[in-house]
Amino acid sequence: MMKAYKNMSREELLKLQKELEAAYEQAKSEGLKLDMSRGKPSAEQLDLSKDMLDVVSSESNCKTREGIECRNYGEMEGIPAARKLMADMMGTVPEKVIVCGNASLNVMFDTISRSMTHGVCGSTPWCKLDKVKFLCPVPGYDRHFSITEYFGIEMINIPMSESGPDMDLVEKYVSEDAAVKGIWCVPKYSNPQGVCYSDETVRRMASLKPAAEDFRIYWDNAYAVHHLYEEKEKQVQLLDIISECEKCGNPDMVFEFASTSKVSFPGGGISAIAASERNLQYIKKSMTIMTIGYDKINQLRHARYFKDIEGLNAHMMKHAASIRPKFQAVLKALNEELGSLEIATWIEPKGGYFISFDAMEGCAKKIVEKCKEAGVIMTGAGSSYPYKKDPKDSNIRIAPTFPTSEELAKATAIFVLCVKLVSVEKLLEEK
Amino acid sequence: MMKAYKNMSREELLKLQKELEAAYEQAKSEGLKLDMSRGKPSAEQLDLSKDMLDVVSSESNCKTREGIECRNYGEMEGIPAARKLMADMMGTVPEKVIVCGNASLNVMFDTISRSMTHGVCGSTPWCKLDKVKFLCPVPGYDRHFSITEYFGIEMINIPMSESGPDMDLVEKYVSEDAAVKGIWCVPKYSNPQGVCYSDETVRRMASLKPAAEDFRIYWDNAYAVHHLYEEKEKQVQLLDIISECEKCGNPDMVFEFASTSKVSFPGGGISAIAASERNLQYIKKSMTIMTIGYDKINQLRHARYFKDIEGLNAHMMKHAASIRPKFQAVLKALNEELGSLEIATWIEPKGGYFISFDAMEGCAKKIVEKCKEAGVIMTGAGSSYPYKKDPKDSNIRIAPTFPTSEELAKATAIFVLCVKLVSVEKLLEEK
Repeated sequence: MMKAYKNMSREELLKLQKELEAAYEQAKSEGLKLDMSRGKPSAEQLDLSKDMLDVVSSESNCKTREGIECRNYGEMEGIPAARKLMADMMGTVPEKVIVCGNASLNVMFDTISRSMTHGVCGSTPWCKLDKVKFLCPVPGYDRHFSITEYFGIEMINIPMSESGPDMDLVEKYVSEDAAVKGIWCVPKYSNPQGVCYSDETVRRMASLKPAAEDFRIYWDNAYAVHHLYEEKEKQVQLLDIISECEKCGNPDMVFEFASTSKVSFPGGGISAIAASERNLQYIKKSMTIMTIGYDKINQLRHARYFKDIEGLNAHMMKHAASIRPKFQAVLKALNEELGSLEIATWIEPKGGYFISFDAMEGCAKKIVEKCKEAGVIMTGAGSSYPYKKDPKDSNIRIAPTFPTSEELAKATAIFVLCVKLVSVEKLLEEK
Repeated sequence: MMKAYKNMSREELLKLQKELEAAYEQAKSEGLKLDMSRGKPSAEQLDLSKDMLDVVSSESNCKTREGIECRNYGEMEGIPAARKLMADMMGTVPEKVIVCGNASLNVMFDTISRSMTHGVCGSTPWCKLDKVKFLCPVPGYDRHFSITEYFGIEMINIPMSESGPDMDLVEKYVSEDAAVKGIWCVPKYSNPQGVCYSDETVRRMASLKPAAEDFRIYWDNAYAVHHLYEEKEKQVQLLDIISECEKCGNPDMVFEFASTSKVSFPGGGISAIAASERNLQYIKKSMTIMTIGYDKINQLRHARYFKDIEGLNAHMMKHAASIRPKFQAVLKALNEELGSLEIATWIEPKGGYFISFDAMEGCAKKIVEKCKEAGVIMTGAGSSYPYKKDPKDSNIRIAPTFPTSEELAKATAIFVLCVKLVSVEKLLEEK
């Protein structure tokens, strides 16, 4: 059991600093090039889906069971089997789903862009308004915040707890300010904390009473099936926001998004949007101008390969088996090396792609910088916050999936070293 | 040699009308269901590319020659081999090309949408302007006009001649009116006329002196490689607009678009945008917010299957061999049945997907309606014009590729019959 740093004397800290600096110089001299910055599947994970590349071939036909020729134009909403698969993934029904291209990010971008130029279901286009605001639970997904920033939408931080965003605050903003048009949510195994919204949180979301008629919940169910554990009791179940909204008399209040980027291939998956009939009608008015249809051959590949949601869930257990040891290795190192030092906290996720790490205030940027100097790329400090500004400069997102286990061990060791070093420096400044 | 209708007496016309009506009732009773409405490849054409589905499989790797893993995230501009292929198709260089998703229509929509919300290379966002106008050579591609209409852009008809749009008019509008922000062009084998812009037209386009800094030529090179004939002298060569613009000191004045929709698969092809470095930099600023990358596995399929532009051109000759007889059959029927009647004109295209047909003024809608009653779907009369308003109500777009030869013969016979019938009715009204 190591001593908590804050209880060390100045002399002890100076001695420790010297040792850590020596170790750091040693690490730097190894000239490593490691990357824990992005939530990317590993090569091993990509191989899990390789047989998908064979299910549509010159030998097979390219028709759906209904006789739709996937190679030709048309079928803007997606082929029925793909709509069903994506609906099951999101916990909704195929009629509420449109299957899109390879990136749900693109669908989210299009949804905001459409609101800017054409409003939402007939509301005033946002580009005609003086001010549009979005609520952003933090820490959150950097690319969400990039979209709203790009369109000049003001972002308001909402603190996260273990059960989801601070709903008192959300309710206050949404019901009092008609400029608040949306909230970004990653409701299950959130990026980066792995938080799952509790039933109460989902129900409070669904029963919001927005001041703005065109307020929508942007429900990015990116990790709907991305459990880390096989045991059912460790797999979190999320309430279906769409039916909860219906129950509350708010059927149109949500857009849900999902993709197979981390199920099949990030570079060649399929994505989807789910919403009420009224919302979909409005979306289709613009979509029919934008495209004649998304890639149906790839939709057919996914439908044939996974067959159904049971097939897809079984496939996800292979991913879990591949990445769980990596999460566990990082968590073990954090526990062993930092567990008793009282210089950081972190969350053990049950799914998703990240470990969210909180250093002492004012240390995150320095830690990431130090890692970089030693050849370990972490996600930029602050990126999990709107405008890349972490008010406490403490949050760091760890993405353990992409490196091999060996690389990960090295990278984590350096990360831990940098955390210690920067923390000691901070404590010395204060003494 | 049949007599021109206009030289017939009232009695002759009445007799003819009776005969035609009998034939029409007979045709209606057959209960046909034929479609000459959209430029869709036939089943036979789709099969031409079926081996493309095998070149990326579980047995092959998914890496480019440079080592890029196509299954994972990244490489927003597209993989090098796909950029090269699309550049060669458009007659430009890979550095000026970004390879996108399965539909160039989507890329064009995004380009206009971006201009609405963010302007062009730093200009005022169009949504902040009172008036934005586009020049629309007519007849033209209905889906272009749908995009500009959707964004509330005012469209101005520009007459087409055999060498392209009326450049006197184009020059006048572009140089005098700063609200004119763009012109839609299908410069080669245009939709629907099959017109190819002459060298002089391309050069006059490239040397435009726009009143608006953010004026751009929207150069939809949709049929760049879609020749109908094998003989080199029958294959039209188009000047490269990008280098012509450079020569004229207007390097940023053009966005070029293309796709493989009618090369490989409409439902699963790849598309591209080409432009100057400054334009691409601006596009990438928004694209990087919109997506992490387009479907690279499909890009790899295209690159591996076609190998290079020679392979692609050879492939297009298979398409030509498949669809040329259909074009010839329609043209033969038009010549034989209508050639001497002086009630219609049409253009014999050397490439592309359409035959443009002009009936007597005020007859197009009635002809299309009559065809529909007899079970033959034609493109809606007027759709080749902004706001679907053909000022003369005379143009009809014939799309001969999708039906089988047998269906096409039947459909053409009914079309010809309807043209005759409606023309006789018109002449009788006037007598």
